Amino acid sequence: MTSGADVAVLGASGFAGALAARLIDRHPFFELEAITSRSDAGRRLDELYPHHRVEMVLDAYDADELGAIDAAIVAYPHGAAAAVVAELHERGVKVVDLSADFRLRDVATYEANYVEHPHPELIAEAVYGLPERYRDAIARASIVACPGCFPTAAVLALWPLSADHVVIDAKTGVSGAGRAATEKTHFVSVDENIKPYGVGKHRHTPEIEQELGTPVTFVPHLLPIDRGILETIYARLEPGVDEATVAAVMQAAYADSPFVRLTGNALPEIKHVAHTNFCDIGWRVNPATRQLVMVSCIDNLVKGAAGQAVQNFNVAFGFDEGMGLN
Amino acid sequence: MTSGADVAVLGASGFAGALAARLIDRHPFFELEAITSRSDAGRRLDELYPHHRVEMVLDAYDADELGAIDAAIVAYPHGAAAAVVAELHERGVKVVDLSADFRLRDVATYEANYVEHPHPELIAEAVYGLPERYRDAIARASIVACPGCFPTAAVLALWPLSADHVVIDAKTGVSGAGRAATEKTHFVSVDENIKPYGVGKHRHTPEIEQELGTPVTFVPHLLPIDRGILETIYARLEPGVDEATVAAVMQAAYADSPFVRLTGNALPEIKHVAHTNFCDIGWRVNPATRQLVMVSCIDNLVKGAAGQAVQNFNVAFGFDEGMGLN
Amino acid sequence: MTSGADVAVLGASGFAGALAARLIDRHPFFELEAITSRSDAGRRLDELYPHHRVEMVLDAYDADELGAIDAAIVAYPHGAAAAVVAELHERGVKVVDLSADFRLRDVATYEANYVEHPHPELIAEAVYGLPERYRDAIARASIVACPGCFPTAAVLALWPLSADHVVIDAKTGVSGAGRAATEKTHFVSVDENIKPYGVGKHRHTPEIEQELGTPVTFVPHLLPIDRGILETIYARLEPGVDEATVAAVMQAAYADSPFVRLTGNALPEIKHVAHTNFCDIGWRVNPATRQLVMVSCIDNLVKGAAGQAVQNFNVAFGFDEGMGLN
Amino acid sequence: MTSGADVAVLGASGFAGALAARLIDRHPFFELEAITSRSDAGRRLDELYPHHRVEMVLDAYDADELGAIDAAIVAYPHGAAAAVVAELHERGVKVVDLSADFRLRDVATYEANYVEHPHPELIAEAVYGLPERYRDAIARASIVACPGCFPTAAVLALWPLSADHVVIDAKTGVSGAGRAATEKTHFVSVDENIKPYGVGKHRHTPEIEQELGTPVTFVPHLLPIDRGILETIYARLEPGVDEATVAAVMQAAYADSPFVRLTGNALPEIKHVAHTNFCDIGWRVNPATRQLVMVSCIDNLVKGAAGQAVQNFNVAFGFDEGMGLN
Repeated sequence: MTSGADVAVLGASGFAGALAARLIDRHPFFELEAITSRSDAGRRLDELYPHHRVEMVLDAYDADELGAIDAAIVAYPHGAAAAVVAELHERGVKVVDLSADFRLRDVATYEANYVEHPHPELIAEAVYGLPERYRDAIARASIVACPGCFPTAAVLALWPLSADHVVIDAKTGVSGAGRAATEKTHFVSVDENIKPYGVGKHRHTPEIEQELGTPVTFVPHLLPIDRGILETIYARLEPGVDEATVAAVMQAAYADSPFVRLTGNALPEIKHVAHTNFCDIGWRVNPATRQLVMVSCIDNLVKGAAGQAVQNFNVAFGFDEGMGLN
Repeated sequence: MTSGADVAVLGASGFAGALAARLIDRHPFFELEAITSRSDAGRRLDELYPHHRVEMVLDAYDADELGAIDAAIVAYPHGAAAAVVAELHERGVKVVDLSADFRLRDVATYEANYVEHPHPELIAEAVYGLPERYRDAIARASIVACPGCFPTAAVLALWPLSADHVVIDAKTGVSGAGRAATEKTHFVSVDENIKPYGVGKHRHTPEIEQELGTPVTFVPHLLPIDRGILETIYARLEPGVDEATVAAVMQAAYADSPFVRLTGNALPEIKHVAHTNFCDIGWRVNPATRQLVMVSCIDNLVKGAAGQAVQNFNVAFGFDEGMGLN
Repeated sequence: MTSGADVAVLGASGFAGALAARLIDRHPFFELEAITSRSDAGRRLDELYPHHRVEMVLDAYDADELGAIDAAIVAYPHGAAAAVVAELHERGVKVVDLSADFRLRDVATYEANYVEHPHPELIAEAVYGLPERYRDAIARASIVACPGCFPTAAVLALWPLSADHVVIDAKTGVSGAGRAATEKTHFVSVDENIKPYGVGKHRHTPEIEQELGTPVTFVPHLLPIDRGILETIYARLEPGVDEATVAAVMQAAYADSPFVRLTGNALPEIKHVAHTNFCDIGWRVNPATRQLVMVSCIDNLVKGAAGQAVQNFNVAFGFDEGMGLN
Repeated sequence: MTSGADVAVLGASGFAGALAARLIDRHPFFELEAITSRSDAGRRLDELYPHHRVEMVLDAYDADELGAIDAAIVAYPHGAAAAVVAELHERGVKVVDLSADFRLRDVATYEANYVEHPHPELIAEAVYGLPERYRDAIARASIVACPGCFPTAAVLALWPLSADHVVIDAKTGVSGAGRAATEKTHFVSVDENIKPYGVGKHRHTPEIEQELGTPVTFVPHLLPIDRGILETIYARLEPGVDEATVAAVMQAAYADSPFVRLTGNALPEIKHVAHTNFCDIGWRVNPATRQLVMVSCIDNLVKGAAGQAVQNFNVAFGFDEGMGLN
């Protein structure tokens, strides 16, 4: 175990970056050394987010002025993150990147869904930052590509199992849409409503398919709540797999993972994971049809972003995985 | 066309019954003759539901004191409705029953899901009250079994098509859970939350399967909103069926149905149908996998209950189908 | 009674303008002749507001192209409305203006709270459009200045009474903040929150003071709901005035006003007036201290804007006051 | 400082009791020894409140079976608490009582507002548990009567000042109404609504008046949110008192109180205090009229109940006041 680390959070004025700053600020072994923002440089973070109580000023990003940092969380939009990650990587800074820039191993898939990749040469350096699956690789990685919020819940539910005909019906709170004020995030658009979006083209689909190795149908919906994702997952199991088999496989997969809670038949709900780093997973199996129904819940900003970033750093620096996350 | 009809609403103190009373009260050709309640007899309906503004007193039910009514809407719980329906039927009163008692044609299926059927001999008299599908039979029926709220949205979406591997992921507002104050309907349980319920055993499943003639996986979820249902429906189409075929089939099916609005590629949302009798249906097809994604939205208390009851009466009495519903 | 009138709604892409267009569109005696928008010209109104179902295209405003209209509702921002009102007025068009431009009779007060007044010469032509108080003048007016949403609820509650030490604690839904997507209207800012705003400087204060003839302390708060205003009003009554006196005064004031409902001791709530043109008013008096507590509720977009505009037109054209508003 | 203490929480199945159990369970110096419930004995607390993660079974209350406890939090309803408090007091257990039973120093006032007092002889033993005001007395007390949620926000705002004509317009989340499922707490009653209740007779009025020494007009309203209270307070200051004077008085009063945050002109909102033990207080003064507008916000279950109970214990046992509350 190392004795601590100095961390910068870049892009700390967005929802995920601000929460990452707060978590680092209160972490027993990390020191929050700098926070930056492209839109709000010069303002105090506790002016933007009083409830986070991080009493620091946001700076404009300048790699030379970050100080002697050991690690950084990059909370930039897709496409904009890669350049910063590359610059920090070159200086020997361990990076957790919250964007999609280094999640997809296939550059063509990335470019079909996002933009031209600014640093394809670094993709091979990056590890997909799902500690429950890639703990050892994360411990050795210099770039950790933190999974998307929807893929986190879906992949944790399904990777231990073998299933096809996968349908993922996802419901998310509005904080997942970010801090930008748009018609989509206007209170009047969201309140007393639910709507699907991005059907057939949401960019988390290839990420989930990469991790599961099977095609999926993925439909996200916007809920009138602030925080949390609930995914209802439908799939067909292999012959002979019943509820007990699923339970055994899942328990084996997560025996050493403190943040995955298996609820078995008692299906989870968002309220039980909101504002925590837990992923709750429950399931039902219809033996006649081999139909699996799984429900997987996370807080999109914690386990789906900032909490998972800290969990990755805990693994990377050899701390207890849950340090600063309870 | 007849010249009008006198109507009673039994069970008018619940959400659906109260709205039925309001719709009848304002209908140009129906006269609201009596309203009854088992729990609130003696109270005024506008004391319980000021916004409905129906200035009548709720009576205890007594078939002999209902006056000379032509028709009745029965908004009783499952199991309790059948006896009242039978009594009114014997007196020659046309009945729309909002309960499940006469929806399932197979008495064994009913009894496996509900209770012992009090009047199985009347099942053959009843017509499933989905006017878009059974308009002619409804026009001649003496008992109309109004569909459940979830089946209304699901069956309208799927019956015109041929598909299998059907998954129905339904999201509903809390008014669908009724007026009873329980832990489930407590504000604190629902707010900032979404949860699945009744997985693998919800009683609307056999009703949907009866109408579609195929097994379905049906999972309802409770949303933090008052009114509305959105169902995201996943199914596998037959070879060769693409988006244009679906569009053609749906347009043909609903050419003469004013309350079904086909939105094509532009998927519907609850806000557009709340407080209306519309069912909005949109779809996407992935031609490579023949995967259909449909979204079907209704207001659970209007098209899913009281509005559909009035629509059925309009059909039964030869009025314009939309009379009193716009 | 005249036989009908052709109406244009200018600024129909905002919340209030869109609802005004819908109400005129369905009104039995008005014809919706044109709708305009500065930001969305060329788009269909039912694309922006599907639930309103007004199947018309928004035009850019051009007085020469509005056609032969008899009347117009102007739903422009403060400051921008006056020029349009003046232009239409010159052409002999009856105008209901939803902005503040002609509400304040004192131009200096207007200019201290808003901007330099573009057409002060027309202030004397305008009547304050509260039909319950100025019905006769409205019937003869060519310019009707529709009251602000907060003043509507406050003035209806208090003008019949004589009271001082007036405190108005107002709570409003987010639709009152308009369609603009800002940090203030972002779902995440509003959800699970309530906050005061504009304390000591809200521009509805002088409007209320003008109508009541007494200074008031007015504090609005933003609620996590879409529609509705509830104002809790505290004032000190004159000696000898008790609950019965208040009741008598209020009943006399509103004997002929179908949209004011007096609830006496049973204090109103937003749910009972949402989506209606009613103003519900209830009160309690502490005889020992002469302290009056009144609660006044409206729907901010209906009685607080578009509904009141139509009510004013009904009065102005000699129709029944409630035509098209039930 | 003592070295720790064993604590029981009685009535731990309600919202406030359950949160108290969680706070004690995680407190560095307290040991949660027992939890009891009258309605749910035999159930695990983490079955009722999974997100609190207290893995203990609720017992029926029996003073002889509580074990060797040093202190207890009693979260019983008013009237039922006094007997338990008396029994524990006799055994030398330090008690924080969340009910109203020992808040009012005048037994006649208590009995006029609640029930016949079961143990009036103990009233003199009890200290009003507002640490910011009565820290020294709490340190010596054997019975601490934890303030009501509304009085906490109101008294913290006003006791340092001298003012009359006090009006307190309070808005509260639904968790303040407790866990009981009633028409009042039904989601459909609360959603998209706000309503006043208990006007002129709410039992927190005499409690506030006792602490302020002046009559107040107090009107609470129910908000469609889970957690939090915002009170907008109107009062008339003495001549010569301006905003700067108020600031100086408040800063002096709370210089050593870590949980009161003075926001000055920037009025607080519920979101900034939800799920914390803070009370945020801001103000504006109109010098012309000497009218004070204050806004005071707390989380009703934390600073308004369970958090304040723990804060009181911290004071009573000589720990840092904020221990276990950050």
